[in-house]
Amino acid sequence: MEFKNVSVVKEANVYFDGKVTSRTVLFESGEKKTLGFMLAGDYEFNTDAEETMEVLGGEMSVLLPGESEYRLYTKGESYIVPANSSFKMTVEKYVDYCCSYKN
Amino acid sequence: MEFKNVSVVKEANVYFDGKVTSRTVLFESGEKKTLGFMLAGDYEFNTDAEETMEVLGGEMSVLLPGESEYRLYTKGESYIVPANSSFKMTVEKYVDYCCSYKN
Repeated sequence: MEFKNVSVVKEANVYFDGKVTSRTVLFESGEKKTLGFMLAGDYEFNTDAEETMEVLGGEMSVLLPGESEYRLYTKGESYIVPANSSFKMTVEKYVDYCCSYKN
Repeated sequence: MEFKNVSVVKEANVYFDGKVTSRTVLFESGEKKTLGFMLAGDYEFNTDAEETMEVLGGEMSVLLPGESEYRLYTKGESYIVPANSSFKMTVEKYVDYCCSYKN
């Protein structure tokens, strides 16, 4: 699976000392996605726009806003994080993901 | 800096348990590059085509084929690895890189 006719920002986005990194992909429509990779760890992120997170490989346990329990997401699964919220995740080994930002 | 009018393979290339990952970028000209990220570690890679490695962030010490000493490459620097060879590197913290494959 490829994204075609896109622009890619050359430099990586680096978080948590490099344990979480991503590359920004820009579409002609103005849409933005990031292709990212997380190594083992516990993380918390904040959203501005609504985000759809799709697992491309590996797995991640996620605690969504308002939920009381973590849920495991594996390859091919996705979840939505509301705008202006925060969510937590635990990665046991690693996870490859695609994050789509709502325009 | 952005690559424009390219295709990007969605899934990451994963090496060394995820300590080295990259995304493949394909150009209309047929050229291929990977945008990659390495965490701390000692690595050895083999080349098929000649590769130009450019450091986008962080730094890497590299032992090129035929050399007897590692040399440090930092942001903005690059080096060429001959086709059909192997090279070693040591990463102390992390390095963000772009690898261009000769057609």
